Amino acid sequence: MLLSRLTKTVPIIGQLRDYDRGKLGRDLIAAIVVTIMLIPQSLAYAMLAGLPPEVGLYASILPLVAYAIFGSCKTLAVGPVAIASLMTASALSVVTEQGIVGYVEGAMLLALLSGGFLLLLGILRLGFLSHFLSHSVVAGFITASGLVIALSQLKHILGIPASGHNFFELVQSIFASVTQFNKYTLALGIGSLGFLVWARRGAPRLLELCGVQADLAKVLAKVAPVIGVVATTIIVAGFALDLRGVDIVGAIPTGIPALQLPGISMDAVKALALPAMLISIIGYVESVSVGKTLSAKRREKIDGNQELIGLGAANLASGISAGFPVTGGFARSVVNFDAGAETQLAGIFTAIGITLAALFLTPLLHYLPVAMLAATIIVAVLSLVNIAIFREAWRFSKSDFSAMLITVAMTLYLGVEIGVASGIVTSILLHLYHTSEPHIAEIGLLQDSHHFRNIKHFEVETNSAIVSLRIDESLLFSNAGYLEDYIDNLLIDRPQVKHIILHCGAINGIDLSALEMLEQQNTRMREQSKQLHLSELKVPVKAQLDKVGFIDRLTGSLFLSHYDAYKSISNSLGR
Amino acid sequence: MLLSRLTKTVPIIGQLRDYDRGKLGRDLIAAIVVTIMLIPQSLAYAMLAGLPPEVGLYASILPLVAYAIFGSCKTLAVGPVAIASLMTASALSVVTEQGIVGYVEGAMLLALLSGGFLLLLGILRLGFLSHFLSHSVVAGFITASGLVIALSQLKHILGIPASGHNFFELVQSIFASVTQFNKYTLALGIGSLGFLVWARRGAPRLLELCGVQADLAKVLAKVAPVIGVVATTIIVAGFALDLRGVDIVGAIPTGIPALQLPGISMDAVKALALPAMLISIIGYVESVSVGKTLSAKRREKIDGNQELIGLGAANLASGISAGFPVTGGFARSVVNFDAGAETQLAGIFTAIGITLAALFLTPLLHYLPVAMLAATIIVAVLSLVNIAIFREAWRFSKSDFSAMLITVAMTLYLGVEIGVASGIVTSILLHLYHTSEPHIAEIGLLQDSHHFRNIKHFEVETNSAIVSLRIDESLLFSNAGYLEDYIDNLLIDRPQVKHIILHCGAINGIDLSALEMLEQQNTRMREQSKQLHLSELKVPVKAQLDKVGFIDRLTGSLFLSHYDAYKSISNSLGR
Repeated sequence: MLLSRLTKTVPIIGQLRDYDRGKLGRDLIAAIVVTIMLIPQSLAYAMLAGLPPEVGLYASILPLVAYAIFGSCKTLAVGPVAIASLMTASALSVVTEQGIVGYVEGAMLLALLSGGFLLLLGILRLGFLSHFLSHSVVAGFITASGLVIALSQLKHILGIPASGHNFFELVQSIFASVTQFNKYTLALGIGSLGFLVWARRGAPRLLELCGVQADLAKVLAKVAPVIGVVATTIIVAGFALDLRGVDIVGAIPTGIPALQLPGISMDAVKALALPAMLISIIGYVESVSVGKTLSAKRREKIDGNQELIGLGAANLASGISAGFPVTGGFARSVVNFDAGAETQLAGIFTAIGITLAALFLTPLLHYLPVAMLAATIIVAVLSLVNIAIFREAWRFSKSDFSAMLITVAMTLYLGVEIGVASGIVTSILLHLYHTSEPHIAEIGLLQDSHHFRNIKHFEVETNSAIVSLRIDESLLFSNAGYLEDYIDNLLIDRPQVKHIILHCGAINGIDLSALEMLEQQNTRMREQSKQLHLSELKVPVKAQLDKVGFIDRLTGSLFLSHYDAYKSISNSLGR
Repeated sequence: MLLSRLTKTVPIIGQLRDYDRGKLGRDLIAAIVVTIMLIPQSLAYAMLAGLPPEVGLYASILPLVAYAIFGSCKTLAVGPVAIASLMTASALSVVTEQGIVGYVEGAMLLALLSGGFLLLLGILRLGFLSHFLSHSVVAGFITASGLVIALSQLKHILGIPASGHNFFELVQSIFASVTQFNKYTLALGIGSLGFLVWARRGAPRLLELCGVQADLAKVLAKVAPVIGVVATTIIVAGFALDLRGVDIVGAIPTGIPALQLPGISMDAVKALALPAMLISIIGYVESVSVGKTLSAKRREKIDGNQELIGLGAANLASGISAGFPVTGGFARSVVNFDAGAETQLAGIFTAIGITLAALFLTPLLHYLPVAMLAATIIVAVLSLVNIAIFREAWRFSKSDFSAMLITVAMTLYLGVEIGVASGIVTSILLHLYHTSEPHIAEIGLLQDSHHFRNIKHFEVETNSAIVSLRIDESLLFSNAGYLEDYIDNLLIDRPQVKHIILHCGAINGIDLSALEMLEQQNTRMREQSKQLHLSELKVPVKAQLDKVGFIDRLTGSLFLSHYDAYKSISNSLGR
């Protein structure tokens, strides 16, 4: 009992129950591949977030351990990702300009707030909320962000200065200074880009030609970026290209981060709370979608609320170890999965790998050209850009297409934060629109039976002075207003109606707004000398209405069956 | 045809079609009563909003004409109201402190933004959104705001300085300086309060005793505050109490406002956009609830979207005539209705009445004590405070009670804006929670029939390798995630299941998110050598799925009837 609860809260316990040498071997191999892949990515995403490169490594140590312990997906690989990094940069650029908080401290605070928010959602079991984010809105946002990210890295490929508050300003700024490009940087950049693009398809094929098994070749090819890193670093160092204007990563402090909280001021918390929430939401949605896909392949369950707790713990860990917001990454999770990871121990081994890199490898990265990192980012995010989905949306559903387009336009023009926010608002508005006409049916008596059916679909008996309405869901504030308008308009349009019987068989609960509506409707009908009746009330609902005395105030009566109600009122009218 | 469209856009045309002398007389009388009632209220609410008194009069001229033309409720009386005034003060205090915009200009801009927002909602026919605001949240907010407003006026009754950013600071500040009260102010204040409270019940009774007919007495009693205004003004002027520390209204410019736009800076628009939206939403909800009640009494329809347009026009009019945000007021609309108003011409006559007051009456108001205006506000808002509803919520529904309490606490502690915003968020979260488990039922074959019914409620035939799921609503992003998890978990929990048949008879549409989900589920099932089938697809839905080629990619088949699907798959398994 206790163990089963513990296993639920700390899923890794369950994963390790029948751990053996075979699993250990596979976890270790996956960890080595992911570590090699993660080193350049960590540095690159830290750069994208505007942070020193070592912060990327820090964000790839403790967060992985925290997710390994609390996350529910066995193969998800957590760490810095492109979109969260861009959103971090966007959030911090405003508050640091205003001097509210320092850049590195701000990033830590952002991770803490993100972690706290995710943890809270998880504890409150609000994971279901992510179902209300429209896929098309998320796809639109991710594509637009991918374009912004790719464009923002172009300056590092060209070796020019460029900046701008939105996509279009960035384009202008690049055009304005494109002629000042640095030829060495450009050569390195184009070379890196070309190599990375080739590596995606060419490297596996080459390895296969060399006799490597297809599956293994696919995994090994993911390590190719490291060859690029080594090669470009040697070229820059060998030809002293840093003296010819090629930007390099420079000195990276060696060591692991000290555990400490960032300085927390109320102003900084206020300024960063909303961005942290938006980063969390998008991070969670991305991560869960990867997790679902991978888990389903191995017929394993993942639990949305546990994922919130796992990602929350990872971000809290990032916030106290000099990191920045992290989440589950698509590419690295797939690599982890394909490389054979069996449990989250692979995540812990990866964290050990990155720790070793932070301790011993950083001096070797001194001459790593920024252009190589930029190329890594561009190749990574271009896979996020999904133009096909726009074509599909256009053909499939114009309303999805519009929602997508709004999100893209907002993201490109007003930035990622407003982009996500407008996407969320659009999603919720769409949902409210879809649910704005609740299930209420006017019903009549089916001939030779005691059954009532929708008058729209069946030949039924009705009485012009009586209207029977069947409410097909609980009566809550969100449908109370609709029912109120429905009855108001019905009484105006059909003045001959003297009785309304509400068939309440499907009502499991009534909230206060609906009660107020019933009270008002009852009063209005009394003023018009009309009667409101209820039939087939469930016992707890009747008890609820009794408690506040509504049944006593009812202008009409309460009937056990709708048939009795209809017959007895018809008879009373007949007399 | 053209006329009927015009009547729909400009409802007053319809109201005037069979206008006669009887209606004219009743409209005139109602207008006179409302004008007399509106003069002190306008001054008082302008003061509450932190604006010069004449602004209250300005906001009671053109906006009334605009609503009269475009509004759909025949008897709604529009103008400054307590809560919108408090929210105006709250919004402006921040931005004017930062020097972004001047106070009066800011108020105009707020009205313009409000008007634009309401108009936009109306044109987009988004009035239904107000159904998604929980009544209990609105009631909690209104009660809390009423308390804040009453407390904020107490200093004028006592004649002391007091201020604070929230309810509790206000209480502290009043306690700190309560001993410095001005005895003349306090006497006038208590006297005014006592008179106004008495006037509510005592005045009608007194008039009845004097032989006035009961209904008329009720209406005439509403004019009582003017007697208080006249009496206190004479007392202050006669005894020169302004020289003894009694705050007076002072010089009010005579004349009517020039039509002009406020200075509009992008910064000011950004700072005021959100407050304007919140003011609009609460104003609309209050106004429509009054309108519904009054219209239902006379069996007239009001159209929520037309109300948005009417209130939008009123606020735009306020914004270009030196006013501030307005909406339909409860007390004055009831008076207008009881005094016999027949059409919105009563509103236009009221506007003329207020114009005359602005032209000729303002010099007489020089010695009007502020304490009298404060008393007017306190008596008006205390009727908004509804403590009974908390008791009712506690007894009826704990979740309503919690939502109410959160809203009250937020409003008292963090101010009106955060109060409304958290109320809206709470409402939407409650709605999402209620709709988070969509209608999906596992169904089985009813014996000796071709019908399928919910396996939970009926004795039905099933096959352990086949699961039939009936989806009782359109397949959209908001339920796609739920269905996806449902199928994922089902396939893990019941590995013997080889076929899933979705009964799509109730699906009227599929959006892109749901399509993506179906595609993914289909792919996952293919990887597990399982099949997904669809039955009873409606023609347009089938066409939609055909267009993107999903039917071709389907692992299973398409069946016209669910019975055929079940039988043919069962037979294929039997072989």
